[in-house]
Amino acid sequence: MAIEVSNKQILFRDYISGSPKETDMILTTTGTIKLEVPEGSNSVLLKNLYLSCDPYMRGRMTQSDSYVAAFTPGKPITGYAVSEVLDSGNPNFKKGDYVWGFAGWEQYSLIENPQSLTKINYTDVPLSYYTGILGMTGMTAYVGFNKLASPKKGESVYVSAASGAVGQVVGQFAKMMGCYVVGSAGSQDKVDLLKNKFGFDDAFNYKEEPDLTATLKRYFPKGIDIYFENVGGKMLDAVLPNMSVHGRIPVCGMISQYNLEHKDGVHNLVHLIMKRVRMEGFNVSDHYHLYPEFMEVMKQYFMDEKLVYVEDVVEGLESAPAALIGLFTGQNIGKQVVRISHD
Amino acid sequence: MAIEVSNKQILFRDYISGSPKETDMILTTTGTIKLEVPEGSNSVLLKNLYLSCDPYMRGRMTQSDSYVAAFTPGKPITGYAVSEVLDSGNPNFKKGDYVWGFAGWEQYSLIENPQSLTKINYTDVPLSYYTGILGMTGMTAYVGFNKLASPKKGESVYVSAASGAVGQVVGQFAKMMGCYVVGSAGSQDKVDLLKNKFGFDDAFNYKEEPDLTATLKRYFPKGIDIYFENVGGKMLDAVLPNMSVHGRIPVCGMISQYNLEHKDGVHNLVHLIMKRVRMEGFNVSDHYHLYPEFMEVMKQYFMDEKLVYVEDVVEGLESAPAALIGLFTGQNIGKQVVRISHD
Repeated sequence: MAIEVSNKQILFRDYISGSPKETDMILTTTGTIKLEVPEGSNSVLLKNLYLSCDPYMRGRMTQSDSYVAAFTPGKPITGYAVSEVLDSGNPNFKKGDYVWGFAGWEQYSLIENPQSLTKINYTDVPLSYYTGILGMTGMTAYVGFNKLASPKKGESVYVSAASGAVGQVVGQFAKMMGCYVVGSAGSQDKVDLLKNKFGFDDAFNYKEEPDLTATLKRYFPKGIDIYFENVGGKMLDAVLPNMSVHGRIPVCGMISQYNLEHKDGVHNLVHLIMKRVRMEGFNVSDHYHLYPEFMEVMKQYFMDEKLVYVEDVVEGLESAPAALIGLFTGQNIGKQVVRISHD
Repeated sequence: MAIEVSNKQILFRDYISGSPKETDMILTTTGTIKLEVPEGSNSVLLKNLYLSCDPYMRGRMTQSDSYVAAFTPGKPITGYAVSEVLDSGNPNFKKGDYVWGFAGWEQYSLIENPQSLTKINYTDVPLSYYTGILGMTGMTAYVGFNKLASPKKGESVYVSAASGAVGQVVGQFAKMMGCYVVGSAGSQDKVDLLKNKFGFDDAFNYKEEPDLTATLKRYFPKGIDIYFENVGGKMLDAVLPNMSVHGRIPVCGMISQYNLEHKDGVHNLVHLIMKRVRMEGFNVSDHYHLYPEFMEVMKQYFMDEKLVYVEDVVEGLESAPAALIGLFTGQNIGKQVVRISHD
C-alpha cells in the first residue's frame, strides 16, 4: 500500500491588481499525497527540489492579462521546477530520474500530463541550473539573442535587467559573438557583477542616472544595434532615440510595467521608422523545438568554461512568496531560485 | 544662346515646431533659369509637371528630426515629382524623356546629380501615377505589405489612413492576397471609397468611434494578423490589444504624431510580448533595388485592371503649400498631387 505523506503547498489566494504581496499566496501544511501514481495512469509523481521565480508569473495573477494560463485561486502556484521522479506510469520517465518542467509550488506534485517535463541527462552542473540557464531562461536568452536579434560581430548591444536570469546569459552570448555589450541594473553590486563576473564591456546603475537618454548616448555614441528588452516603459523610451539604423529590439519582458494598473506611455516610437528598427515580442514556448540544439551548444560552453552563472537561492518553500515578490523590486541578485529539499 | 525664362518657386522659410502653416513656404516669382544644362556637365534640366505631397516631408521641416535631409531655409522645397527632360548632359536621359524622382517645387529644376531620377517607360497610365502608385508610395505599399508583413491567404488585415496614397494600395494588395481587409479613414466620403472603390471588406470613420479598442474588437473578433501602421499614437494603442498571436505591424508612418511637440504615449506595448508581435519600421529608400520587380507586377495588375487608384490633384504651384498642409488634417481624398504644367 502506498505511503501517504504530508505535502506543504503554496496556494494562490485570488486575482490581484497592482503589485503582488506575500499575502496573495498562502502556505498550507494540511495537505497529504500518496507517493505513487494511480494504477494504469500516464502520470509522474515528483519530489520537487528547486522552484523557479520568474517575472512572467505576475501575469498569471491576473485573470485575463496573460499569455499563459492564469493561476487558479485556491490551487497551488505553478511554475518551472527541477524535480526527482519518485514514481512513474509514463514510459519516458522512471523512478530516480531528474526532470525539469512545470510543477506545483509544493513538496510533491502528481503530474497527470507530463509532456512539459524534460529529463535531465547532463549533470556536470548543479541541478538548479535547469530552473534557469539550462531551462526556460537560458533558452529565452538563446532564442531572443542568437535567433531573433540577428547579431553580428562588432555590433553594439544593450541589455537591461542585465544581471537577471536572462540578461546575464544574453551578455555572455553577445561577448562570445564579438559584440560590444553594456548592461544596466539597479544596484552597485549588480553593476560590479556585470563588469567583473559576466564580462560586460561596461555597465551602469539606472537608478543613479537622471537622464537615461543622455546616459545611453554616452555609452553608445554610434547607437545601439541590438537592445535586449527586459524592462519597458521609461527605459524603452530612452533607448528608442539611441537606436542605430536597422537596429533590432527583441522584446523579452517589460518588468517595469507588470504591476502598473496604468502602463507608462512610450513616446518615441517614431524612431522605429526613422531608424527602420525591428521590434519583436517573443515567448520561449514557441521555440522549444530548439532545445536539443541549445543543450548541445550550452554543454560545450560549460565544458570549455565559457559561461558563468549567478543564482540567488533561498531556502524552503516558505520563502517562495517573498522571493517571487522580490523580483519586482530587484531584491534578487541573479536568477531567483527556491530550494525546497536538500535530498 | 540659351533661353532664360522665369522660374516660379516655393521656398522653405525656416525650421518649425508644431503644425506646418502655409506661411512656412514662400512663393517667389523673381527667379530665372537657363533652359539648358551647363556645357560638359552630367546634369539634367527638368520641366516639372506634377509634384507629390507626402507626410514624411513634415520631418524635413525640422532640423534634426528626420531620416532624410532637412530642407534648406531660403531654398526650394524638394520632393518627388514627375518631369519632362528639356536638356541632358547625362547619358541615361535625353530630351523628351519623362522621369520621376527628386526635384524642386519650381517650374524648372536643374538636377546636378540625377541618380534619383528614374526614366518612365510604361505610359499606359497617367504620368501623375509616378508621383504615387508607380513611384514612392506604391513601392512603400509593396515593400511594407508584400515583403515585410509576410501576408498569408485568409489573414485579417487592418489599414489605417486607408484611403491615402499608401493605404489604398495596401488594401488592394491584401485583397489580391486573399485577406480580409478593414480600413479606417476620417470621413464618410473616404469610408465609401474604401468599401465601394478599393474593395475593402469593411471600413469605418475613426472620428466617430469613441472607443477604438472596442471598434477594432468588433471588426476583428478573432484578432488582427497584420496592422499596416500609418497613424501611430492612440490608434496604435487601440490596435495592440487586438493583435493576433504572431501578428505583424509594418510601421510605414505615424502621421498623427509628426506635428506634436510631445508625442502621444503608447501604453499597450506589453501586448507585443503577450501576442509575440513583430513591429518593424521601414523606409522605402532601403528597398529601391526591388523597383524593377515591382514595376513588372504593377504593369500586369494595370493591364489586368486589378488596381484602381484615386488621386487628389490640385492645380498650380501656388496651391502646393496648402495641399501639403492639408495632409495633416485629412483634407486630401486619395494621393495628394499638384499639377504645375498642362503641357
